[in-house]
Amino acid sequence: MLIRFENNPILTKHSLKPSFDNWIIECVLNPGVFKFEGKTWMLLRVAERPFQQNGQVSFPIFDHQGDIEVKVFDDQDPDLDVSDPRMIIYKKETFLSTISHLRLVCSDDGQNFYEPEDRPASLFGQGSYETYGIEDCRVTFLEDQYLLTYTQVSDKGVGVGLMVTKDWLNFERTDMILPPHNKDCAIFEEKIDGQYFCFHRPSGLGLGGNFIWIASSPDLKHWGNHKCIVQTRPGMWDSIRVGAGTGPIRTSEGWLAIYHGANEKHRYCLGALLLDLHDPSIVIARSVDPIMEPDFEYEQNGFFSNVIFTNGHVVEGDKITMYYGAADEVICGATLSVAAILKSLVPASVSI
Amino acid sequence: MLIRFENNPILTKHSLKPSFDNWIIECVLNPGVFKFEGKTWMLLRVAERPFQQNGQVSFPIFDHQGDIEVKVFDDQDPDLDVSDPRMIIYKKETFLSTISHLRLVCSDDGQNFYEPEDRPASLFGQGSYETYGIEDCRVTFLEDQYLLTYTQVSDKGVGVGLMVTKDWLNFERTDMILPPHNKDCAIFEEKIDGQYFCFHRPSGLGLGGNFIWIASSPDLKHWGNHKCIVQTRPGMWDSIRVGAGTGPIRTSEGWLAIYHGANEKHRYCLGALLLDLHDPSIVIARSVDPIMEPDFEYEQNGFFSNVIFTNGHVVEGDKITMYYGAADEVICGATLSVAAILKSLVPASVSI
Repeated sequence: MLIRFENNPILTKHSLKPSFDNWIIECVLNPGVFKFEGKTWMLLRVAERPFQQNGQVSFPIFDHQGDIEVKVFDDQDPDLDVSDPRMIIYKKETFLSTISHLRLVCSDDGQNFYEPEDRPASLFGQGSYETYGIEDCRVTFLEDQYLLTYTQVSDKGVGVGLMVTKDWLNFERTDMILPPHNKDCAIFEEKIDGQYFCFHRPSGLGLGGNFIWIASSPDLKHWGNHKCIVQTRPGMWDSIRVGAGTGPIRTSEGWLAIYHGANEKHRYCLGALLLDLHDPSIVIARSVDPIMEPDFEYEQNGFFSNVIFTNGHVVEGDKITMYYGAADEVICGATLSVAAILKSLVPASVSI
Repeated sequence: MLIRFENNPILTKHSLKPSFDNWIIECVLNPGVFKFEGKTWMLLRVAERPFQQNGQVSFPIFDHQGDIEVKVFDDQDPDLDVSDPRMIIYKKETFLSTISHLRLVCSDDGQNFYEPEDRPASLFGQGSYETYGIEDCRVTFLEDQYLLTYTQVSDKGVGVGLMVTKDWLNFERTDMILPPHNKDCAIFEEKIDGQYFCFHRPSGLGLGGNFIWIASSPDLKHWGNHKCIVQTRPGMWDSIRVGAGTGPIRTSEGWLAIYHGANEKHRYCLGALLLDLHDPSIVIARSVDPIMEPDFEYEQNGFFSNVIFTNGHVVEGDKITMYYGAADEVICGATLSVAAILKSLVPASVSI
């Protein structure tokens, strides 16, 4: 069912250049994936920060004019909490330890990727909703255009942004499409009954949790009919959070979606869902066991260990070529079989 | 600027009958307010639970078929946390201590309210997104119909629902319009450039906070263009959470909106905002000091003390007749002057 690329990881922080002098890339991860002009492309998340000086912790943010501001703290400051490598908490205020942008790479064989010379390689955060960067883009090709849904991060919260492009040269940005706290948004590659559909992952506060929801839209900009389709399962590998990967795959049995689930130990695995073709808010079947776990060294050790996170793949017949972030630090690939995943699923009446 | 009704509180838990035998009403609070057929109407939130037996804590939820299920715990159970009177936390799972429905009352003079004989008085939660009840309805009259935005509470999370009625006899319910964690949604009483507008209050998780956002919609069901317009202010009376009251009042200077703000001690006061008439995402001015604080005994002592919370008013010329929940337990009224509030506001460049 699952074969990892032999040359994993296929991209690391050493594969690319930082955006600025004296900066370092800490992680390349979580690529959106698409086909364009006969090639396979990834829109990576690149997480960077200034080179860390001894005795200091520094991290960058964009100010509202789009200029970079570097915040510096004494690493012995008792008000500083860096226990989660992804975050800097200072006097109860939360920042990210790195700032992420999205970067384009392409490949002729789907295994060896390089930065294209003829296109802008980097998309940075813009405006006051992206001052802490943009992350984890899903790319959906629909009606002659590419729809990019991504996480917008700022001191106003974490929401979902949308960019639209036809040529990967010009990008039209809209206002935030899903308000905080929301991420993991992926648009379906087909309309259903004239409406667009997406997965998204709002977070509860006290009540509810980190569940997968579905919504529909007449125009991609305004979303409604929000329904919760996948909840976490106590005691299982997806007990604390679930979130969609990229848009689902149409099969004769229904929409097949790959999702991530994490447990109390923040161990991220992948599972799958089968949704009704006509009403994708109906879950037909779901994985009981993960279809993929962080079993390899590059998945078990890194910037944030024991993580497999996918938000992009290409599908040819039965073969899914899936790209994923491993340990929040490197990018890997694997192939999976649609039929084998479908066979592994358990009816919702039992698995949900 | 502010005159409380002399007969406050105008409604208490003793003013109404519980929905079921052996139940008690704990609180009547947070009314949506509207004019209809020459009368002033309130759509109250009524919070109830079974009569509490000695040694037990019990609370009701709707099951997915709409039947009531009562959960009962031993009040000495070490896994039970009832430190917040609004909640029951059992083994990390959160429930509400009461279940709320919405109830109609009307008045000829705006001070003495009674349940109408010719209309269904109670609207209960329905379906799987309202199993823990429905709360805090805002009522907007627009284009010949009443738009009811309210909080939907369930184990799936806290989101915003919409009902539409023309006659207060028939109600059309839609799917959730704003996903978790969201509440305090109020629709504007006019369209702007052909779009509907609303305030809403998503909550951040780590990043962001409990801020007021604005969104627009072509059809009331699908919302987008989310923008954060009001953040909390450290050290001030609205340092931890802010949320809109009901829809704003059109004035020649801009949209005037009353909002609630709470500090670390969960003390809820009211303030006001002035927004640009053509682009209400632009804040022109804001209260520095509250326009109303919990100064009276019935506001300082109750089910949840030191709370003033408004989500409804009627406006005649300069006079706002505002209704509010006091101490999360009773309903009160007060009159305010539009001109006086406007005069009290401080330009956004200073106050924001």
